Amino acid sequence: MKYQLQQHVQVDFTYPCIFTESVFSPGNLDLVEALRPGQEAGTAAKVLVVIDSGVAEQHPDLAAGVSAYCFQYRDTFTLVAAPCIVPGGEVVKHDDQYVRHIQALVNEHGMDRHAFIFAIGGGAVLDMVGYAAAVSHRGVRLVRFPTTVLAQNDSGVGVKNGINAFEKKNFLGTFAPPFAVLNDFGFLRTLSDRDWRAGISEAVKVALIKDAPFFDFLEQHADRLAGRDMAAMQELIVRCARLHLDHIATSGDPFELGSSRPLDFGHWAAHKLEQLSGYRIRHGEAVAIGIALDATYSMMAGMLQEAAWKRILQLLHALGFRLFERELWPSPDTAVRPVILRGLAEFREHLGGELTVMLLHDIGQGFETHQMDDTRILRSLEILRDWQKQSDPTILEEVAL
Amino acid sequence: MKYQLQQHVQVDFTYPCIFTESVFSPGNLDLVEALRPGQEAGTAAKVLVVIDSGVAEQHPDLAAGVSAYCFQYRDTFTLVAAPCIVPGGEVVKHDDQYVRHIQALVNEHGMDRHAFIFAIGGGAVLDMVGYAAAVSHRGVRLVRFPTTVLAQNDSGVGVKNGINAFEKKNFLGTFAPPFAVLNDFGFLRTLSDRDWRAGISEAVKVALIKDAPFFDFLEQHADRLAGRDMAAMQELIVRCARLHLDHIATSGDPFELGSSRPLDFGHWAAHKLEQLSGYRIRHGEAVAIGIALDATYSMMAGMLQEAAWKRILQLLHALGFRLFERELWPSPDTAVRPVILRGLAEFREHLGGELTVMLLHDIGQGFETHQMDDTRILRSLEILRDWQKQSDPTILEEVAL
Repeated sequence: MKYQLQQHVQVDFTYPCIFTESVFSPGNLDLVEALRPGQEAGTAAKVLVVIDSGVAEQHPDLAAGVSAYCFQYRDTFTLVAAPCIVPGGEVVKHDDQYVRHIQALVNEHGMDRHAFIFAIGGGAVLDMVGYAAAVSHRGVRLVRFPTTVLAQNDSGVGVKNGINAFEKKNFLGTFAPPFAVLNDFGFLRTLSDRDWRAGISEAVKVALIKDAPFFDFLEQHADRLAGRDMAAMQELIVRCARLHLDHIATSGDPFELGSSRPLDFGHWAAHKLEQLSGYRIRHGEAVAIGIALDATYSMMAGMLQEAAWKRILQLLHALGFRLFERELWPSPDTAVRPVILRGLAEFREHLGGELTVMLLHDIGQGFETHQMDDTRILRSLEILRDWQKQSDPTILEEVAL
Repeated sequence: MKYQLQQHVQVDFTYPCIFTESVFSPGNLDLVEALRPGQEAGTAAKVLVVIDSGVAEQHPDLAAGVSAYCFQYRDTFTLVAAPCIVPGGEVVKHDDQYVRHIQALVNEHGMDRHAFIFAIGGGAVLDMVGYAAAVSHRGVRLVRFPTTVLAQNDSGVGVKNGINAFEKKNFLGTFAPPFAVLNDFGFLRTLSDRDWRAGISEAVKVALIKDAPFFDFLEQHADRLAGRDMAAMQELIVRCARLHLDHIATSGDPFELGSSRPLDFGHWAAHKLEQLSGYRIRHGEAVAIGIALDATYSMMAGMLQEAAWKRILQLLHALGFRLFERELWPSPDTAVRPVILRGLAEFREHLGGELTVMLLHDIGQGFETHQMDDTRILRSLEILRDWQKQSDPTILEEVAL
C-alpha cells in the first residue's frame, strides 16, 4: 500500500409520520404542511399519484378526491397525470412491469428529484412504488399513504422498499427513507376482517421483543381489537409505529449493514410459509404463526417460562389468528423433513452473514441466537398443531398428522 | 392531525480508499486486509468479479490473475464463477441488460448481503456494476477497482452509481457507498493518451472551486502530467480523491437531497456536449470545455479577474485539452440558438429544484448562482472558439463561424 484515505460519511434523514383522518378532504392541511419543507417558494411541485386497486375499489371517489385536493392546493402541487391504478397485493411485486411503468411516467412528465410520488395502498404497493421512486434520478421524493393496519404500523413507516425477482421476496430493493408518511385512519374502516386482523401481529411482535406494557395493552384490548374497535386500533397503530421508528433510529444499524435484524422476530418461518402457500396466507397471518413458533421454541429450549408462552398463544388466539397451517408440515410421513425448515437458510441468505434469529427470554425481552435446532423446531410445530387442533377441530381433517 | 412522530435517521458509512500497485500480485495483502472488517471468522466470502472489456484487453492476464489471487487467499474469498467481462465505456450503461446479467449471477450463486462484487474498470463499468450490486438484496457489498484517472480521482471513490434510461444519463441509480476502493496505479500505464488526459479535468475542476495550492501544483506539473509522468499523476490522483472524499463527508448533503452540487462545476455544458457528440467526446474532455466555458462566463460577468481566467485556459491548453468543439455551436446561422443551452434546463431537472450552478470568484473559490444569462453564455462560447482558433487553426475548417 502506498497511501490510504479512510472515508466516513454520515447521512441524515428526517421525515414526519402523521396520523390523521380524511387526508384528502378539502380542509385537511396535513399534507400541504408536510410537504412544505421541501418546496421552493412560488413553485408548485410535480406530483404523480399511484393508487392500490383494492383501495380504489373500496373508495370509488378517492382518485377524484386526490385530484380535487391537488387542484385546490395548486399553488403547492401540480398533478402530472390522472392517478395511476396498480394491482393491490403481492402480485404487484412479482415482476418489474409496474416499476417500469412508473419510471416511464417520471420520465415522460419531466419529474425531478424534488418532485413527489404519492403512493396510496397496502404494503406491497408501497414497496413497489417506493422502489420505482428510489432508483429514478437516484431518488424522487416518496410520500406514503399506508391504507392497511400492517402498513400503517410497520412497513409503511420504515425505510425499505422492494420487489420480488427470481422468485425471491424483495430480491430487488433499496433502503430509502420516505419524504413523509400520512396514516389516514379512515382507510381502516373498509378493510376486510382478515386485513384488519393481519396487521395486529406486527404489534404483538414488537411488544414481545421490546415493550411488555404494550403487550399488556394488547391483552387487555384483544376483544375490542378483534371486534374492530377503532379507538383501540388507533392506539395500537401509534404505539407500534413509534416502536418501529424508534428501533430504526436508535438501533445503530438503520440500513442493516450487519447481520442482526431484531424486527424480523418470527419472520424466518413467516416468509417461507407465505411463499409455500402461494401467498394464500397473508404476511401478517404468517407472522402470527412465526411468532407462535419461535415463542414455543424459546419455551422448549428453557429460555421462556411456560406461563409467558401461554399468554402469547392465548393473545394470538384471542385476536383470531390460526396458529397452524397445513403448509407447515404437509406430508403425513414423519420421516420427510418439512420444507418450512428451509426458511432458516433462506432467511440467513437474505440477511447475509451469520444466521441471527431473535428469540424470547420474557415478554418484552428478546435476545439473539445464531443457531436453531431442527428437532426442537419440529417438536414446536407439533405443539402448535396440537394447540390448534384443540381450539379448532377442523384442523384434524386438513392436517393428516 | 391527530398525532405526529418526527423520525430522524442517521446512517454511518465507512470505507477505505487505498492507493496501491499490482493489487492482485500474490504478495499484496491490501485487498485481503480491506475486506477483513466485513468478514465472519472462519468463513470465505463469496465473490463475483466483473471486468471492463477494455481493461481485460490491455491486461490479458488479469482475469487469471484475479482468480489465482482469490485461490491463494481462499480462506478469505471464494470466487463463485469465472470473472465476467462486460463492455467498457458508456455502452455498458445504455440499457439494463448487464445489470440483469449480474443480478442473475447473484441469484444463481446464492450471494447474500455480505458477499462481494469486485468491479474492475473505468467509470462507466463501475457505475453499472455499482447499481446492480446496490439493488440486489438491497445492497451486496461493492469493491471498486477504478482503472482510469477519472475513476481513480473522482467517480470511483464517491457514493453514486447509475445507468442510462429513456436516453437520459444516469436516469436509474442510487447513492450507495462502496465497501472499499482500491486504486491500483498499475492500470494507468496502459491507458491511451486521451484517457490519461481526460481524467485530469476533474482535478482542475476541484482545484478551481476548493484548493488554490492544488491549482498551482497542476500548473507547475502541467508538462509532466501531459508527458505521462507517473509520480506527478499519482500525487494528482491522491490529492484530487482526497478533496472529493472530503467534500462528500463534510458538505452536509452527501446524498444530494438539496439542489446544490458544487462538484458539478462545469458539468451542465459537459453532460450535454457528451450527449450531442454521441459520446465521441469523453466525459473528462467535455468537463474541460465546461470548466473553460463557466470560467469565461465568470470573467465576462465581472466576477473573475481576467488574469485568473487566462491561467485557467492556459492550464487546460497546456494539459492538451481542446476548448471548443463543433457541437457547441453547429449552425453557421447565428440566429439559431445552440442546442448546448438546453443543457442548463436538463441539468436543473436532473438535480431537481431550483437551478444551482457553481461559478468562480477566484482560483480556489467557487460560489453558487441560480441563473445564467443566455447572451453571456453565447459570448463566452465565441471567446472559446476564438481562443481555440488561435491555438489550433484547424478549428477554422471545422467550425463554420
